[in-house]
Amino acid sequence: MLTAEENATLTQTGPGTPMGKTFRHYWLPALLSRELPAPDCPPVRVKLLGEDFVAFRDSNGQVGIVEPRCPHRGAHLFFGRNEESGLRCAYHGWKFDVAGRCVDAPTATPEVAERLKPRAAIRALRTAEAGDIVWAWFGGAEPPGLPDFEFMAVPESHRFVGKKYQQCNWAQACEGGLDTAHFSYLHAAMSEGEKVGLHLAGVPKAERQGDNEPVRLKRLSWMIDDGAPRFTVLPHAAGMLLCAARTADDDQLYWRMTQFLMPNHSLTPGNLPEDTALANTWMPIDDTSCWIFCYAWHPDRPIRERERERLAAGAGIFAEVDEHYVPIRRRENDYLLDRDAQRTRSFTGIDGISEQDQAIADSQGLIADRTHELLGQTDLGVVRFRQAVLRAAAGVEAGETPLGAADPGAYRVRSGDAVAAHGAAIEDVVHGRFGEFWGKAVQAVAAGG
Amino acid sequence: MLTAEENATLTQTGPGTPMGKTFRHYWLPALLSRELPAPDCPPVRVKLLGEDFVAFRDSNGQVGIVEPRCPHRGAHLFFGRNEESGLRCAYHGWKFDVAGRCVDAPTATPEVAERLKPRAAIRALRTAEAGDIVWAWFGGAEPPGLPDFEFMAVPESHRFVGKKYQQCNWAQACEGGLDTAHFSYLHAAMSEGEKVGLHLAGVPKAERQGDNEPVRLKRLSWMIDDGAPRFTVLPHAAGMLLCAARTADDDQLYWRMTQFLMPNHSLTPGNLPEDTALANTWMPIDDTSCWIFCYAWHPDRPIRERERERLAAGAGIFAEVDEHYVPIRRRENDYLLDRDAQRTRSFTGIDGISEQDQAIADSQGLIADRTHELLGQTDLGVVRFRQAVLRAAAGVEAGETPLGAADPGAYRVRSGDAVAAHGAAIEDVVHGRFGEFWGKAVQAVAAGG
Amino acid sequence: MLTAEENATLTQTGPGTPMGKTFRHYWLPALLSRELPAPDCPPVRVKLLGEDFVAFRDSNGQVGIVEPRCPHRGAHLFFGRNEESGLRCAYHGWKFDVAGRCVDAPTATPEVAERLKPRAAIRALRTAEAGDIVWAWFGGAEPPGLPDFEFMAVPESHRFVGKKYQQCNWAQACEGGLDTAHFSYLHAAMSEGEKVGLHLAGVPKAERQGDNEPVRLKRLSWMIDDGAPRFTVLPHAAGMLLCAARTADDDQLYWRMTQFLMPNHSLTPGNLPEDTALANTWMPIDDTSCWIFCYAWHPDRPIRERERERLAAGAGIFAEVDEHYVPIRRRENDYLLDRDAQRTRSFTGIDGISEQDQAIADSQGLIADRTHELLGQTDLGVVRFRQAVLRAAAGVEAGETPLGAADPGAYRVRSGDAVAAHGAAIEDVVHGRFGEFWGKAVQAVAAGG
Repeated sequence: MLTAEENATLTQTGPGTPMGKTFRHYWLPALLSRELPAPDCPPVRVKLLGEDFVAFRDSNGQVGIVEPRCPHRGAHLFFGRNEESGLRCAYHGWKFDVAGRCVDAPTATPEVAERLKPRAAIRALRTAEAGDIVWAWFGGAEPPGLPDFEFMAVPESHRFVGKKYQQCNWAQACEGGLDTAHFSYLHAAMSEGEKVGLHLAGVPKAERQGDNEPVRLKRLSWMIDDGAPRFTVLPHAAGMLLCAARTADDDQLYWRMTQFLMPNHSLTPGNLPEDTALANTWMPIDDTSCWIFCYAWHPDRPIRERERERLAAGAGIFAEVDEHYVPIRRRENDYLLDRDAQRTRSFTGIDGISEQDQAIADSQGLIADRTHELLGQTDLGVVRFRQAVLRAAAGVEAGETPLGAADPGAYRVRSGDAVAAHGAAIEDVVHGRFGEFWGKAVQAVAAGG
Repeated sequence: MLTAEENATLTQTGPGTPMGKTFRHYWLPALLSRELPAPDCPPVRVKLLGEDFVAFRDSNGQVGIVEPRCPHRGAHLFFGRNEESGLRCAYHGWKFDVAGRCVDAPTATPEVAERLKPRAAIRALRTAEAGDIVWAWFGGAEPPGLPDFEFMAVPESHRFVGKKYQQCNWAQACEGGLDTAHFSYLHAAMSEGEKVGLHLAGVPKAERQGDNEPVRLKRLSWMIDDGAPRFTVLPHAAGMLLCAARTADDDQLYWRMTQFLMPNHSLTPGNLPEDTALANTWMPIDDTSCWIFCYAWHPDRPIRERERERLAAGAGIFAEVDEHYVPIRRRENDYLLDRDAQRTRSFTGIDGISEQDQAIADSQGLIADRTHELLGQTDLGVVRFRQAVLRAAAGVEAGETPLGAADPGAYRVRSGDAVAAHGAAIEDVVHGRFGEFWGKAVQAVAAGG
Repeated sequence: MLTAEENATLTQTGPGTPMGKTFRHYWLPALLSRELPAPDCPPVRVKLLGEDFVAFRDSNGQVGIVEPRCPHRGAHLFFGRNEESGLRCAYHGWKFDVAGRCVDAPTATPEVAERLKPRAAIRALRTAEAGDIVWAWFGGAEPPGLPDFEFMAVPESHRFVGKKYQQCNWAQACEGGLDTAHFSYLHAAMSEGEKVGLHLAGVPKAERQGDNEPVRLKRLSWMIDDGAPRFTVLPHAAGMLLCAARTADDDQLYWRMTQFLMPNHSLTPGNLPEDTALANTWMPIDDTSCWIFCYAWHPDRPIRERERERLAAGAGIFAEVDEHYVPIRRRENDYLLDRDAQRTRSFTGIDGISEQDQAIADSQGLIADRTHELLGQTDLGVVRFRQAVLRAAAGVEAGETPLGAADPGAYRVRSGDAVAAHGAAIEDVVHGRFGEFWGKAVQAVAAGG
């Protein structure tokens, strides 16, 4: 539970706000590389952290993300022509490169134009491409290196990325991603009013063999049977590992371990060592909507064609979206909630794991009110997330660099599931599953609480 | 004509407003029973008096109307599962019964849950069903009995009820229902630019016989010919009887007598003793929209199948509505106004008595401005309505119980038409037509003026 | 560049604003005569300068533009019946003539009605029809004569008028009409990334002969080759002539000469002596939308049928509009921008000269921000327009009659193109092209700068 002031700090990311300033210390995903598919392709509108931009890819393939307003008379550069290494305003032909420099001002005489151009530069974000994502740096100072996400390091064939529009504030959507407890409810499959399993993205049959297959088969019933997981939180140099234990068979615990990475990323649990890994970034558009970037990758092999097709169609953390990346099942149409299905087949009656998550986050309101809540032990991940980002925002106000912003290597971590003996030390569970990839410790591993 | 302050008082019914507090002293219709057709059927969203609720029918058939927000993390209970005598939140499975009690909190351990549940109760309105309507009691104290409307006392076969959405403040729509003068204009049928009658709901042929048939045939022309009816207002213990006289034949007067019942009901004129009776409740959704509940009943016989079909299709005070009870002819489409029809067939060019009423009320604005009006003697019913409800609101502010709220029996009244000699005393006209059903007098019958 | 206060003054035209008061000193176009096609035809809603009205044509063909609210109970007169020289309210039959007089109040007794009617008069604008346009006078005092536009003086056969909806403030749309420089860019035709001409409305082949044909053929390339025209501004008694010179062949200059007429009219350049002339009025609906009235006329001959059809279909300054005069290609659909067309055929990828202008004006925002601009010599026309209307508004605040308002004859001017020797005096160019029709001088002809 937060005070109204804390809730405002957590949820507002526009220019000048504490959290807005905090976000602007990090490289952030701005759009998918494929939204700008080729040199000199059409420019697109981009809104991030409450600010409007136009993005374009120049003749050399460089991406520019610039303020949308021509400095001459204020026409919008979305209507501009993207030509010969610059975006040319449709009104009077003034032209700007990816760095925001005015490179042509043809309504002026040549002599006047030379004096004019330096004054006619427009704001441009630093950009970089990695992992099929265009990253943007909003800060004024020299940017750090890109966060060293594993999905950006693997060959292109080993990953698939996408995005989806969410019609509420970023923070409550992100909280949903850190809240493993809801798996026992929101995503449950029903039969005759009884929970019989989970609506999880299926794993291709070809994968269903090996040492972990028994865990894969049993964990659905463990999640259904134990709806009150116990959390242990392990802070590290870029965020924290949230470890949630449920009762498994034979005096064992089933651990689902989620990474939260500052300021707005998570690596999801649910994968076993041989599985495709999944992650998200919850990127504010403004204070009442966000893009959820979705990443799938396999450390060791290409994403198979059939899996790629399923992800593109909206499996798992990916949603079924239209050509604008807006989910087909969304706030306006009550997510095509089917009450018969809710009675007979699923806890929500809404198709799609992602859509179930989006529906429940939207249902908390455009901006969730956190001043009246009844938080319990299963909400510990959510509580620690709030503390971490509010602490970072307070630090930024005090002139500090927030956690992880200057430490790209700290983002080379993994998430996933494990089964261990009931009394096993969390260090052993984590190291057994991830080795060095659980997170660069900034402090001795601490049990959460 | 009201002051701006009086107009605000009249039209605002949200929590804490004077009229809002006044409404909350009465049982009020919340939805149709058939909107919750069976035990454990899908929950529905309900907004009344500016407050959001979720309504559901539990396994025992009891209706709950509860605040829509789960106290755990604020998810909306509309997305919940209605199962085994409770509504279960889709996020983490917390469950609430029709009284708002938390009956399950499965993310907590059993011991924690027992301490948690009492703190997790949510607000629930008292509900009761009568007349195929779900009634709600918003007050904090013990509710009085339900108002003793005749339509709720007759067998189910003898009535038909419905509702329709109105896109303006409740009070101006209610005023339209109390304003018999407009019948001579708004609902007039035209031929070649001349008024030739009224667009009234036809009475089935089978009924067209008996002593009153001459009145039935002539009153249309009386209403057309006399567009300035004279009002006499008779206050009683639940409201007032508004009696409007028009010149009839043979030195007689044609009386149309409307009941206004506190705080937002009317029984319509137009019926003769053998006819189906009609009534409305104007129920605020918020300050710029309302539900109009529509009741048709016959004291002595079932509603015949063909009449029921006509009412369901939108005859008389019923509108032609879509599956959400929104009129097909509405503000956004200018009520499908047909200017050719307006020239040749009807005063408005809008199909439907109800739709004509709704159009003209909407046309006064989302909230009618009553600070500039030119009221005359035909507006006396409207004036007395305003006085009555403003007086009640002032009394509530002073700690009084408003008129009728503690007197359910005072709602057993009737409305209707009569013809009487020009000089007949109003007491005789009223008692001749209604007997004891004109209204429990709180004062000697007083001539209005 | 303006201060924020100047920009507010320029763009706000509601009642009581400085520019609103200035506009109300002039006759202004309210609607097309054909929107009220016959006596007693349906009334229409009209919004102008932030005020709502209902317009109707009475049995005698006179047009009334009246406040929309019936003074009795506030019903909207749009729903009224237009009959026998008056608009009758649909609620209770009160009736108003084109001068706003209440001519019937049938809910009152005859004696009461006679006392009531004078108090029941509603506001009515003075109206006049000329040039197939209904003109309105918002002022309280006695109006001056109608502006003596040539298009209103020619026979009806010689003209065609229309209107189109623009989704931004009037002033930036008007600035676009005064800004000849953008012709070299916004309206350019492309081939393989090179500008090859202009998207101008074609002139029918039958016209393509005579002395001016060489100019007609060459000016497209002159406009493409010289994107930095030089302005000379000639003030006169109703506004100013904006003369823009581009380099032509043989040491000549190609002049495009635009009229700006107070407070919101322009006569467009582009026509040669034998051509159809074109003009616009930018009429504020409110501060974020306007009607652009479009006038085409020929001083000497009828508009030919084929040209009329092309104009009606949206050629040149006319847009392709729906039945409500809203452009088919508009803000909501990004003007059906075709990025392939933008690459291969046109600078914008938007079809239609008018739609290109509308898109770029809309793109400046609902109200253009003029506090950050980089104006150059090609923006001189825009600068002088702002100065003229702001000066008029300041004068009105000081009790003066603004330029042109009391001088109808000063509006009998023309615009158009000419070719002249490089060193020719502007007086000779102007008088050679227009004779007395360039504008009644209020001061010696002055070179702009």
